[in-house]
Amino acid sequence: MPFVAIVTALALGQFFMLGFRVARARTRYGIRAPATSGNEVFERHFRVQMNTLEQLVIFLPALWIFASFISPLWAAALGVVWLLGRAIYAISYVRDPKSRALGFALTALPTLSMILGILIWGVRAILLGAAW
Amino acid sequence: MPFVAIVTALALGQFFMLGFRVARARTRYGIRAPATSGNEVFERHFRVQMNTLEQLVIFLPALWIFASFISPLWAAALGVVWLLGRAIYAISYVRDPKSRALGFALTALPTLSMILGILIWGVRAILLGAAW
Amino acid sequence: MPFVAIVTALALGQFFMLGFRVARARTRYGIRAPATSGNEVFERHFRVQMNTLEQLVIFLPALWIFASFISPLWAAALGVVWLLGRAIYAISYVRDPKSRALGFALTALPTLSMILGILIWGVRAILLGAAW
Repeated sequence: MPFVAIVTALALGQFFMLGFRVARARTRYGIRAPATSGNEVFERHFRVQMNTLEQLVIFLPALWIFASFISPLWAAALGVVWLLGRAIYAISYVRDPKSRALGFALTALPTLSMILGILIWGVRAILLGAAW
Repeated sequence: MPFVAIVTALALGQFFMLGFRVARARTRYGIRAPATSGNEVFERHFRVQMNTLEQLVIFLPALWIFASFISPLWAAALGVVWLLGRAIYAISYVRDPKSRALGFALTALPTLSMILGILIWGVRAILLGAAW
Repeated sequence: MPFVAIVTALALGQFFMLGFRVARARTRYGIRAPATSGNEVFERHFRVQMNTLEQLVIFLPALWIFASFISPLWAAALGVVWLLGRAIYAISYVRDPKSRALGFALTALPTLSMILGILIWGVRAILLGAAW
């Protein structure tokens, strides 16, 4: 699974970086912890991180189940689309929240495809009499 | 693991749907990104999603470790209870936040049972001289 | 994997406990759901839980990939540092948010080390001609 592992490590590193951007925006706009509001640009950085958290939590389980039971190669390829989608999302959301749709779609679609693939695989495996 | 994989795919799909409900509530109540407050009903949808995120992050690792080392069948059964609990939680929280206890208990108990099971299994495995 | 499984179960239990502290702070300081602000001490508890959520989501995948492909023993050892780091973070943040750096570093460094280890392993595996 080296390709899927690398995609995962990059996604984790990307999420870490978004956290650093929130920390930097905290300093730059004078938003002291525990506050999470008070400046529009800070809030954009914060929402990018939170939305990526939500997407990461769906993406990683889907990625690894898909890779383990269906195809590690396709999993890695869809994972690369996800990584690009998140980068586009982060950049465009901070610039203008209204422009976040493309980046969001590019992260949601790979994940939804893998979830659908897992459901089809699971039902098929049960019908073919697989073990628990 | 087809049953556990299907439960996981359903949990991921359920979480995705909660995200769509937040997005719809955003439009309906005029809460523009990056804001996450300003309307009580929007905030309920938002808190349902966040609380489910917190629970999902504990549930999925517990589910797969339990399934891998203890019992995939019990893992899938507890997972079904979790899915129902989350559906009850989402519906009752939006109707009235004070009624969220039942749905919360039905998601917390399966997860806590699996965590306890993993701890017992782990300690027992070490005492019996298992490999790292 | 009993050691890694135990570390994971403890991390999940720790996160659960942080959620209970938020619920208790909700009652104590009269912050009714769905609100998440209105009292500084409540907000500290809430931010501890959210920051731990962010860290847990990076830590667990890194832990298991590192344990599966590189070393379960080192994964478990780094996981123990992570657990201690989170405990220090939670205690010091609630006392004074400005003192949160040490606990944060002790959770970020084990995770970043494992991510780096996975990247090196992954690239090396591909160069050596591993399967997908």
